[in-house]
Amino acid sequence: MSRKLILISNDDGVHAPGLHRLIETVAPLADVIAVAPAEPHSGQSSAMTVNAPLRINTHPDMAGAKVYSVTGTPVDCIKVAMHHIVPRRPDLILAGINHGSNAGVNIIYSGTMGAALEGCIQGISSIGFSLLHHSMEADFTECLPIIKSMVKTTLATPLPHDVCLNVNFPAKVKIEGVKFVRAARSHWTEEYQTYTDPHGKQFYWLTGGLINEEPEATDTDLYWLHRNYATVVPSTPSQNVPAAIAPLSALYK
Amino acid sequence: MSRKLILISNDDGVHAPGLHRLIETVAPLADVIAVAPAEPHSGQSSAMTVNAPLRINTHPDMAGAKVYSVTGTPVDCIKVAMHHIVPRRPDLILAGINHGSNAGVNIIYSGTMGAALEGCIQGISSIGFSLLHHSMEADFTECLPIIKSMVKTTLATPLPHDVCLNVNFPAKVKIEGVKFVRAARSHWTEEYQTYTDPHGKQFYWLTGGLINEEPEATDTDLYWLHRNYATVVPSTPSQNVPAAIAPLSALYK
Repeated sequence: MSRKLILISNDDGVHAPGLHRLIETVAPLADVIAVAPAEPHSGQSSAMTVNAPLRINTHPDMAGAKVYSVTGTPVDCIKVAMHHIVPRRPDLILAGINHGSNAGVNIIYSGTMGAALEGCIQGISSIGFSLLHHSMEADFTECLPIIKSMVKTTLATPLPHDVCLNVNFPAKVKIEGVKFVRAARSHWTEEYQTYTDPHGKQFYWLTGGLINEEPEATDTDLYWLHRNYATVVPSTPSQNVPAAIAPLSALYK
Repeated sequence: MSRKLILISNDDGVHAPGLHRLIETVAPLADVIAVAPAEPHSGQSSAMTVNAPLRINTHPDMAGAKVYSVTGTPVDCIKVAMHHIVPRRPDLILAGINHGSNAGVNIIYSGTMGAALEGCIQGISSIGFSLLHHSMEADFTECLPIIKSMVKTTLATPLPHDVCLNVNFPAKVKIEGVKFVRAARSHWTEEYQTYTDPHGKQFYWLTGGLINEEPEATDTDLYWLHRNYATVVPSTPSQNVPAAIAPLSALYK
């Protein structure tokens, strides 16, 4: 039997330390191939490149893993990797470690989770990892044993069909434990900082804050991250709402 | 009481005929403001612009509606519109009419549905409309009475919290009726056409086809679109899988 194969991507790009720590952590467990965006692609969700060509670049091996970059989004990386790079079907797809939170509503905007959801759509067990710290100097040490343990378990027992995992780690603290929860209902307050260019024309830059709409809900990721626990949210690419079909069908008759 | 307000966006850009037909169709029903991407943004999912500024351009009124473009994604359009453009909270957000299918798994890649899901996250009734025809010369005539009727109903009775609608129309046929269904489980076959540039280096362009994994399932959008029905899929931005939390928590102990 051949060794298990792990495909890794991210959204912070091929040079991000979070990607390198993830490669080093899982390289002892399986064959590893990393295919990451050539440039950072935060906030890219499940975007893919349909109206432009893509290039594949090769990079030096890392901890025995082959490393490539693709001039596109995280989803492009998974698609190109599956079609052109991997020598056999991967047993596991990992994304991250993201520099920044993908908890609460952030999953829908996240390029990291875009890659994991794409793996899930393709029927492969997939996990996205994120640390609640944006800096390129973030310290991932506390996350790594948890990641290694979760990857071992998933290589032994694949995830259910249509389910991937969204894992978030608190930053700069001793992690108290791991909680399996749901994503908290939340939204961003849109705020745009307004600037005036040298020609007198205005332009706008997104800022704003995440509002947790249910801060007391003990079964949510935002609740436990706030209390220094890592959180695991089973997540699905399906956006169906079966219970709404019959009543809405009646309403719109 | 002031007139109802509808905010419209799309992913094919401010110059797309599908946007113009949608504006004209609903303009008699409410005040209408359109805020669309300055350039086409197909396949942009819920991507948003975090590392670059945005500009807002004004365009000539259309059927009495104010028209703006934003130099970003469909989600950027909704966020900028909510923060900087609309004079009051919209009663309804519409996206489309998209030139191309957003049925089956396409919802997760769709910029049109990215805009509708963003409206839903913000607690506003939201509907995405798509025609299964990519051409800029597509004929939207058959869709328009159905759209007008659905918009009237939704202005009278808002959608449930966390639910938006993904509406797809068959192209070049008489529409047999409207079915409320779920999105069919499906995936794209990745195929990349390979080219060689003048310097001998390869580049790749996404192609491929949509595979319906359950072609006989009569409760799905792909089934009925194939039979010349319009389909309405109640959809949610939430990607939680509550039923998977307990068993996975036990497995990863």
